[in-house]
Amino acid sequence: MSKTNRGWVLESYPVGDNFDAALKLRDRPVPEPGPGQMLVKSLYLSLDPANRGWMMMPTYIPQVPLGETMWGFVLGRVEISNVPGFAPGDLVSGFGAWADYCLMGAEMSNKVPDLGGFPLSAAQSLFGLSGGTAYVGVIDIAKAKAGDVFVVSGAAGSVGSLVGQIAKIQGCTVVGIAGSPEKCAWLTGELGFDHAIDYQREDVGERLTALCPKGVDVYFDNVGGPMTNTIAHHMALKGRIVLCGSMAKFSNPGPELDLGAILMNRVTMTGFILIDHFDRLDVANAALAKWAAAGQLKHKADIVEGLENTVTAFGRLFTPGAPHMGKLLVRIDPTAN
Amino acid sequence: MSKTNRGWVLESYPVGDNFDAALKLRDRPVPEPGPGQMLVKSLYLSLDPANRGWMMMPTYIPQVPLGETMWGFVLGRVEISNVPGFAPGDLVSGFGAWADYCLMGAEMSNKVPDLGGFPLSAAQSLFGLSGGTAYVGVIDIAKAKAGDVFVVSGAAGSVGSLVGQIAKIQGCTVVGIAGSPEKCAWLTGELGFDHAIDYQREDVGERLTALCPKGVDVYFDNVGGPMTNTIAHHMALKGRIVLCGSMAKFSNPGPELDLGAILMNRVTMTGFILIDHFDRLDVANAALAKWAAAGQLKHKADIVEGLENTVTAFGRLFTPGAPHMGKLLVRIDPTAN
Repeated sequence: MSKTNRGWVLESYPVGDNFDAALKLRDRPVPEPGPGQMLVKSLYLSLDPANRGWMMMPTYIPQVPLGETMWGFVLGRVEISNVPGFAPGDLVSGFGAWADYCLMGAEMSNKVPDLGGFPLSAAQSLFGLSGGTAYVGVIDIAKAKAGDVFVVSGAAGSVGSLVGQIAKIQGCTVVGIAGSPEKCAWLTGELGFDHAIDYQREDVGERLTALCPKGVDVYFDNVGGPMTNTIAHHMALKGRIVLCGSMAKFSNPGPELDLGAILMNRVTMTGFILIDHFDRLDVANAALAKWAAAGQLKHKADIVEGLENTVTAFGRLFTPGAPHMGKLLVRIDPTAN
Repeated sequence: MSKTNRGWVLESYPVGDNFDAALKLRDRPVPEPGPGQMLVKSLYLSLDPANRGWMMMPTYIPQVPLGETMWGFVLGRVEISNVPGFAPGDLVSGFGAWADYCLMGAEMSNKVPDLGGFPLSAAQSLFGLSGGTAYVGVIDIAKAKAGDVFVVSGAAGSVGSLVGQIAKIQGCTVVGIAGSPEKCAWLTGELGFDHAIDYQREDVGERLTALCPKGVDVYFDNVGGPMTNTIAHHMALKGRIVLCGSMAKFSNPGPELDLGAILMNRVTMTGFILIDHFDRLDVANAALAKWAAAGQLKHKADIVEGLENTVTAFGRLFTPGAPHMGKLLVRIDPTAN
């Protein structure tokens, strides 16, 4: 059986947010899995701000080389397995590519747990990397506790929307920061955040002074940039800042943070990437499933149809007013539920 | 008995490092201790970079008001006490003033412990705030352990010189950063640091690349400014930065730190001021005394004679090449040992 394998090839490094010029959809042979690898048929592709960093520079992984099919987190089905414990037909979630077929190794992939009554897309919109990042970030890194004033940026995104709700479940007062009135209304209306700040239309510093007169105990930072410094100056004594994303960096080169803000209020700031905490994913998934089933935790998959629409959809992550809330997914296989 | 009471009055806020224009030596009446206060005759005055911050802005204490005798850490002898547990004749160390006599409360002062064979100046050069900051910073905050690559800035200063030696005692490889060849020679020659970098004459980033090819596990930051960002980009995975001072801020306004450096290597940065850890001072002093008696920990008091020379001496703290190593003290009472 001949198979087509379309994939988005990184042919040049993006300039600004012109991803159309950098990534081209090409037909390539289906790859052959080597020892320790498996061939996966892609069902859903997760689009994440981190993907942009991978194109631009070495991060916690090497920079994506030119000529490579773009890397991404894929939910798919194993077709051929040279990995012990994985068999054809298994649903897997892991580090793959923006393509119809991709190779995965054992190290950065996991079998999809029993999803109960949740649709398949929940493996990426509720469980997996977004939910795991939110759970570990709020519980283990921020150590959120009842009474904390908890601020989260990128609050309408895949991680931020879960972060704020998990902080609410812990008993925090939660303030979300997002980039449009629609997103803010979703945070306070649907998700139960206490307050929302529209950073495109409001002065974040002034709003924090009004909303958090005793200071911010936890700032969960999904964006970086000058806003981090503004919020750092509103921290309470011994506040905690969790650095989880820095997408604002792309439009704001140069140093961002006044060290005096950290020193004077004896703040602790921690850089956090989930790859150090994969051993906590089982605990995270169990808690997420319980909260979601009880109606305490809502999740939203923003599903784009068709691999061919990937790059256009990706650009929405970097457009503050773009109509996107929750987890941005591309349905690659039209038969996936 | 009539007493003279000279004191340095803050008559205007300093512009740049022109302290001469801002502080004037005036004669004032000896103050009357109120309830909960004691009158202390000053023996030694500690000069610390933090004093500059107190003049310039609200920090962890309010900004020093104009017309006030400048605040400082004083070692003295109680003359009149309205504080339970303190009696005339007691040696005390605490928050006082740049003057022959000052008032102290109970909250920010301590009785000087038995100094064993050490001279009185060791209460400030080895024990007390400098030694306490070094001990708690290295042991409790940085959690230095054998094998760590440990970098300290302001390394020839009162805190930095003790920090590096305590890190050596813990089994770290220690790199000190200071501002003259004489200071660097003192660090590696007298104090046993493994390496020293002269930041006035060498490129700190290049030297760190050569000296710490596996990255920096702990950076103990006594200065802040652009050097912090340089070192942040040399951190090892899960490295720790202890922010303990930010004197470089005065000549470097604006944000200092790239958040990406913290995020990508999952660094933890903690603002640290000893006032939160006074309960650890007894443990710190016991350890410092033991190490000093065993010859493992050297301390240096750089003693200036006479209250009238205070402001001139203070300026040396902010002059990189100035001949100052260790703890800068002013002997106010010429009879003090």
